[in-house]
Amino acid sequence: MKRILLALITVLFLGNIAEAAKYKIDHLEPAFWWAGMKNPKLQLLVHGENIADLKPELNYEGVSIAKVSFVENPNYLFVDLNLSEEVKAGSFDILFKRGKKTVLKYNYQLLQRQEGSAERASFTPADVMYLITPDRFANGNPVNDNVKGLSEQANRSNSNGRHGGDIQGMIDHLDYISDMGFTAIWINPLLENNQPEYSYHGYSTTDYYKIDGRYGTNEEYRKLSQMGKEKGVGIIMDVILNHCGSEHWWMKDVPSKDWINNGGEFTSCSHKRTTVQDRYASKEDLKQFADGWFVQSMPDLNQRNEFMANYLIQNSIWWVEYAELYGIRVDTYPYSDAAFLSEWTERLLEEYPNLNIVGEEWSTNPAIVSYWQKGKVNHDGYVSNLPSLMDFPLQNALKEGLVQEDTWGTGLIKLYEMLSNDFLYADPGNLVIFPDNHDMARIFDQLERDYDLYKMAMIYTLTMRGIPQIYYGTEILAKSDAGGDHGKLRTDFPGGWKGDKVNAFTGEGLSTKEKDAQDFMKKLMNWRKNNEIIHNGKLMHFAPENGVYTYFRYSDEGKVMVILNKGKEKAHLFTGRFHEMISKESKAKDIFTGKSFELKDGIDLPARSVMVLEIN
Amino acid sequence: MKRILLALITVLFLGNIAEAAKYKIDHLEPAFWWAGMKNPKLQLLVHGENIADLKPELNYEGVSIAKVSFVENPNYLFVDLNLSEEVKAGSFDILFKRGKKTVLKYNYQLLQRQEGSAERASFTPADVMYLITPDRFANGNPVNDNVKGLSEQANRSNSNGRHGGDIQGMIDHLDYISDMGFTAIWINPLLENNQPEYSYHGYSTTDYYKIDGRYGTNEEYRKLSQMGKEKGVGIIMDVILNHCGSEHWWMKDVPSKDWINNGGEFTSCSHKRTTVQDRYASKEDLKQFADGWFVQSMPDLNQRNEFMANYLIQNSIWWVEYAELYGIRVDTYPYSDAAFLSEWTERLLEEYPNLNIVGEEWSTNPAIVSYWQKGKVNHDGYVSNLPSLMDFPLQNALKEGLVQEDTWGTGLIKLYEMLSNDFLYADPGNLVIFPDNHDMARIFDQLERDYDLYKMAMIYTLTMRGIPQIYYGTEILAKSDAGGDHGKLRTDFPGGWKGDKVNAFTGEGLSTKEKDAQDFMKKLMNWRKNNEIIHNGKLMHFAPENGVYTYFRYSDEGKVMVILNKGKEKAHLFTGRFHEMISKESKAKDIFTGKSFELKDGIDLPARSVMVLEIN
Repeated sequence: MKRILLALITVLFLGNIAEAAKYKIDHLEPAFWWAGMKNPKLQLLVHGENIADLKPELNYEGVSIAKVSFVENPNYLFVDLNLSEEVKAGSFDILFKRGKKTVLKYNYQLLQRQEGSAERASFTPADVMYLITPDRFANGNPVNDNVKGLSEQANRSNSNGRHGGDIQGMIDHLDYISDMGFTAIWINPLLENNQPEYSYHGYSTTDYYKIDGRYGTNEEYRKLSQMGKEKGVGIIMDVILNHCGSEHWWMKDVPSKDWINNGGEFTSCSHKRTTVQDRYASKEDLKQFADGWFVQSMPDLNQRNEFMANYLIQNSIWWVEYAELYGIRVDTYPYSDAAFLSEWTERLLEEYPNLNIVGEEWSTNPAIVSYWQKGKVNHDGYVSNLPSLMDFPLQNALKEGLVQEDTWGTGLIKLYEMLSNDFLYADPGNLVIFPDNHDMARIFDQLERDYDLYKMAMIYTLTMRGIPQIYYGTEILAKSDAGGDHGKLRTDFPGGWKGDKVNAFTGEGLSTKEKDAQDFMKKLMNWRKNNEIIHNGKLMHFAPENGVYTYFRYSDEGKVMVILNKGKEKAHLFTGRFHEMISKESKAKDIFTGKSFELKDGIDLPARSVMVLEIN
Repeated sequence: MKRILLALITVLFLGNIAEAAKYKIDHLEPAFWWAGMKNPKLQLLVHGENIADLKPELNYEGVSIAKVSFVENPNYLFVDLNLSEEVKAGSFDILFKRGKKTVLKYNYQLLQRQEGSAERASFTPADVMYLITPDRFANGNPVNDNVKGLSEQANRSNSNGRHGGDIQGMIDHLDYISDMGFTAIWINPLLENNQPEYSYHGYSTTDYYKIDGRYGTNEEYRKLSQMGKEKGVGIIMDVILNHCGSEHWWMKDVPSKDWINNGGEFTSCSHKRTTVQDRYASKEDLKQFADGWFVQSMPDLNQRNEFMANYLIQNSIWWVEYAELYGIRVDTYPYSDAAFLSEWTERLLEEYPNLNIVGEEWSTNPAIVSYWQKGKVNHDGYVSNLPSLMDFPLQNALKEGLVQEDTWGTGLIKLYEMLSNDFLYADPGNLVIFPDNHDMARIFDQLERDYDLYKMAMIYTLTMRGIPQIYYGTEILAKSDAGGDHGKLRTDFPGGWKGDKVNAFTGEGLSTKEKDAQDFMKKLMNWRKNNEIIHNGKLMHFAPENGVYTYFRYSDEGKVMVILNKGKEKAHLFTGRFHEMISKESKAKDIFTGKSFELKDGIDLPARSVMVLEIN
């Protein structure tokens, strides 16, 4: 009996020593929050060995612990806080106790929100987005090209490696961006991607609360946003809800088996996106699409797990608030759980009613794309809250419309007919339209390097309904590898690296045609910048005839007439057909030449030309 | 004064003589009607020189003249009758009076309706339609090959001329049609087409109430329908609402300038069908589509003229009632006025609630086609009452799906994804599906004369959701001119003409492959005939993999599994993926070989094969 008692005392004593040593917080996310959010709830993820042994407590007016949840893995706690409407900004300790003993302490901050944060403006059709792949735009700070603890090193000779572009590079060139006429930047993901290779594209998040050190710091990101705002350029964050990177810290110690789809084991995604809408799809096919992994290095997040869902929702809100964001672009939108997506958008819009969010549904079928837009009445009752979608159907039609010969069923008629499908959308004017992006050959290559067609594509994109997006470098006819090597199409922007022979920021070394394209784009976008008719005007188009396609944007402010002539000969366009838009007295002014002329006698169109006319 | 009086008397006297001579009724339509129709109104078109001078009167219990309308042309009267619910079948004189004097008399008949006429059955997915171009199927009565008063003569050597096929030819071969497994015949138009050339196709009506004499008589048409019904083969009439033939009798003396669109002058139709749905279309473009003429020989009827609208509606009802029709197919559906179409279908369905009507909207875009189907909630509030549409999108996808190589975005995936669009339709199960029709190359030619693919197309068409339609001759691999000569693709059915060396009705002279195709089709369609699972079962499909596409039709009655293997090698299909449809205990029976086998070990698929398995 004595022996037993002695042994017991020994165990307890050793246990006590171990207790002091073994508890620590590896992660507590979000690390801080704000007072005065609409939603009074905040769920903290706390990660640390055996943290589930401990009980959190706190004492701060207006903050209470509503619930503590345990999951399969004892290294996690999920702590639900309730923040009252009156809670003041400030900080307080969260005590983690074992019995009556405080084992750990975490000082939690509730920050003061920026004034007007909730009602912030966001991107609209008055904007033009510049899409930047940050590793490839400009290397403003060579010191962070390689960062201790981040495995992949810079290697500019590897098309799929890191080239050193960073946030400072974008800050340095905000004037270029603004002067060109862009008013927003959608930046491919900047969050940490500590993957061994192919990490530059940014779509394999390894830390949801941290800017990748090779791009800079969280603070620098916020600075970019603040400086951009001063120059009239908002920052749009690229958010990935579907998957993380295989090197994400939680992959070594997941909260529960259902944290990652398919029990954390790689199962390839079928990429059969129509299974979501298809009334005949088997459940098995839907599962292979929704739960399959995008690729092996991208574990598929299970948003049906309520803690995961909350984590992602809070994370997005955190970045909007922290980095003073102008909007969000969502990667691989339909790959996530549909019910979750509805909640994620709803909660973001609850906090920021004006926030614009654009999702990527890479389908050329507008029936599929329109399914996801807020306001659409869907066959299956699905209610989406996503305000905007990338207009892939129109992108594809633009390419086909311009490249194909004009016949009964090919060429411009395809573009015309695709636009007719707009009745499928709840709000076609809020779609993001683009000639190309980071996942496809540059439009100039898609158009077989035909400069006349390039100009048509650019004018179309910048005068059509919707919110235009231009990929960095497309304004200077950047080359891309049409063979599909994504690394090669995301070319380094000339002038972004010290010693570059060509500098597109200054124009030095650009070919005549490249400079011409840049000037053309600058003129066009600056004209667009304050053009209410293009921003908010209605649209009327006339069926293409003989390779000529005409449309009007119009409002009480006036009218803009756009004429695409794909014909290889000059042509004369009779204007009688446009009597709904112009009268015999109408005069036109060419926005490029400044030349004015009467419309009653028709318009002489040079071969393979595009005109933008202001009508009065 | 005496002189003047004499002159006056002379004029009056001569006038009286002239009056007796000058009035006659050239047309009174409909020539008869029925007692007991749901709609109590009946509008008679009366045509004859200066008929507007006369006043119609009648005296028959339950019939009254509600209104007499005059139009621009004094040679027309439109007489609205009211028929009471209790009106009895019988006949009465309509007196046409000048003052108190009866100048003309017309004996009008109200016939007794067939019992159950209003509740008649119509085509459903339990049917298979045989589409016949009557001039090219069988010449049952050579005597009517040329008919006095009908200008175009028979000339079998002219691919666009008349070949002599007729109603008697179809009557003669009802057994063939029925034995093959068809349960309905859609016949290209049989109404009089007294055009100088190209009249065989039947789409240029010159008399809305008369079968073309070269096909037979109204009575023969009714006989075909009655005899067909006895053999389980219903007749579907091809109705053209959009246009008439340029030689229609009223073209020489139109009721009013707005009887025909564009004031009766030829203006080419733009064929830009999307202008109907397009929210950006100019009114001018919509007008050029809706009011333009299909071709110069087809004046475009103006259905916004209320008398024209009524005329067409009553004419369709008249034929359903008279010829005991099983259904209607409508030509060039969207080319007519949309509001009129809504009324036309509504009034037909008011009389015949079960009547199925299928419209032709030749678009490969299901967003456009679905706009017209009854039950669709449209963006512009348009309410359509049309129960069925021709499924052109699926036809096109079937061809592409089979002909194209299977890659990420081509081949079977196109067929799979097109079917996913079914959520756009209010009732996809009631669409008419077809491998080919009278306006396109035969499916065997579309499939590059690949017999394996042909079999896949046929099985797909006959097991997929919807109502299958097969073009006459497609069951014996009839050749067509892929170059687009419509006259050549509407080939004479071998054996339909006396002296034909090949007789497909008896099988004599068919090649081994043609006979094999015919046997295959016969077996398949007769199997389908009583297969409730195919008629009414649900559908589940699995995304194509490695060139293999599998789908199931299923109901409480059982399951049918269809497997298309486009692969050039034999393959083994693992069945685990189909766990929602089959279990480890499931057995399959091949409907062609009769062979039964277990499914748990998978299925061996021969190269380029298609299987239909009954599962239990």
